[in-house]
Amino acid sequence: MNLTILGCYAATPRTLTNPTSQVLEMKNRMFLIDCGEGTQVQLRKNKLRFSKINHVFISHLHGDHYYGLIGLVSTFSLLNRKTDLHIYGPKGTKEITLLQLKLSNSWTGYNLYFHELESKEPEVVFEDDKVIVSTIPLKHRVYTNGFLFREKPGERKLDINAVQAHGIHTAYYQKIKNGSDITLDDGRVIPNSELTFDPPAPKSYAFCSDTIYDESIVPLIKDVDVVYHESTFLDSEAHLCEKTMHTTAKQAATIAKMANVKQLILGHFSTRYNSIEPFREEAQTIFENVLLADDGKVFEL
Amino acid sequence: MNLTILGCYAATPRTLTNPTSQVLEMKNRMFLIDCGEGTQVQLRKNKLRFSKINHVFISHLHGDHYYGLIGLVSTFSLLNRKTDLHIYGPKGTKEITLLQLKLSNSWTGYNLYFHELESKEPEVVFEDDKVIVSTIPLKHRVYTNGFLFREKPGERKLDINAVQAHGIHTAYYQKIKNGSDITLDDGRVIPNSELTFDPPAPKSYAFCSDTIYDESIVPLIKDVDVVYHESTFLDSEAHLCEKTMHTTAKQAATIAKMANVKQLILGHFSTRYNSIEPFREEAQTIFENVLLADDGKVFEL
Repeated sequence: MNLTILGCYAATPRTLTNPTSQVLEMKNRMFLIDCGEGTQVQLRKNKLRFSKINHVFISHLHGDHYYGLIGLVSTFSLLNRKTDLHIYGPKGTKEITLLQLKLSNSWTGYNLYFHELESKEPEVVFEDDKVIVSTIPLKHRVYTNGFLFREKPGERKLDINAVQAHGIHTAYYQKIKNGSDITLDDGRVIPNSELTFDPPAPKSYAFCSDTIYDESIVPLIKDVDVVYHESTFLDSEAHLCEKTMHTTAKQAATIAKMANVKQLILGHFSTRYNSIEPFREEAQTIFENVLLADDGKVFEL
Repeated sequence: MNLTILGCYAATPRTLTNPTSQVLEMKNRMFLIDCGEGTQVQLRKNKLRFSKINHVFISHLHGDHYYGLIGLVSTFSLLNRKTDLHIYGPKGTKEITLLQLKLSNSWTGYNLYFHELESKEPEVVFEDDKVIVSTIPLKHRVYTNGFLFREKPGERKLDINAVQAHGIHTAYYQKIKNGSDITLDDGRVIPNSELTFDPPAPKSYAFCSDTIYDESIVPLIKDVDVVYHESTFLDSEAHLCEKTMHTTAKQAATIAKMANVKQLILGHFSTRYNSIEPFREEAQTIFENVLLADDGKVFEL
């Protein structure tokens, strides 16, 4: 699992800072999360293959989280994409995208599927054999969701020495990896636990942006490996959080601590600050394992 | 008069090339022409003051000419703009902009005026005491206009020696600059031509992108000082012009020659070419005074 930050700054794109977008690679799937203006150029700069993106998750319809979507959709067409593209986002995502395509008298040469979100309860929005994605309802000035990406448990690992010692035929290997016990020809039952090792623990990643400090998300991200949580402000601007419905670094750290997550990544920094290092310092007064996002940074998780 | 090219490449924004946008400064007014994705960042990179832009002209609703508009409109709000903003563009420009503002539950703190264009005949779209802007209907895959910017003739320049030699009182100076003859106390009439010099010739700039080769624009840009004309393709790709409704460098040069313009700037280059120098070479086989646009280039005209 790795995470590439394409942009992690609030509000307007600037010469050296980009609005929110990130790519999560999990089990060989590439998920694009949010798509601020300039995302397609950031994808190029970070040498990520456009064609591997089949699922785009939009947290909310503030410009710094989605103004780059229509450009990406159009560019996919110009690049002769044929693979289906799935877009998960608030109601309105479809209308705005299709209106822009209509006005430009253009269309996509691939199928575009919109999965519009309206629920205020967490829900599974994507699932395949390896990964499951569900929403994390957030509290912001407009309807907003975070997203929780979870690997499904893999198959158990064969203890080849044990299997061969029992003389078990290879035809049974898949059954064993799926968790079955084995009955030998002499009638003895060998429990699966003696024939296999545990698979690697499934990894999980939660994206929580934008949101006011909200403890109701704690149970949803309980024990998650890595949580990206917005921290637009430092403590000195905490008074702005209520009106703008954003979070400070310390508040994000408090959520991480309450949820017992392994690692916290801070992002969505206000561009008013000359340095982002104080975000780490303030957060670490509450929760130790803090990383700072930055445009172009890749986290191997 | 000067022209800053923010972007002059066709189709998709890339790491080092930007879609169409340019800023024309004429008579201390700053006109933004087209607004592809990333335009606001290009404005910053070129250190142009956002707040001086009061008029935005959109040629057509293909993404590479307007996907940056909503981001700019939003950023103006975040920057606390109070001055009116006028947007001139095809029917649909208003709908798409207002829908995006509505979905983000936001609004502008300044007045936003849409001047939607539908006419297929040239028309004046902006006029003040110094500048007049009219459309140049173009032929492209969607409804498209170029724009012709003309300085109005300035007042005549006082020949101070002649005026003083005739003992004319300063109270008459403005009248003379406005073109009046003067009757002296002794009854003699001094023609204006003996008291003034011609003002500097009014300058003109025509933006023609995107379009197929179309001689019907020749009378509209006759004798214009500087014409920016798209040249998406070189001769080797001329066969693509009809379907895509674009122009080659030679065709653009032919239009410039027929219209007897002083200077031709080529732009809207397809990103398939590694070098743009051949555009100049091919155009100069037909018309001598050819300049190449490039992102970040400033033309003092």
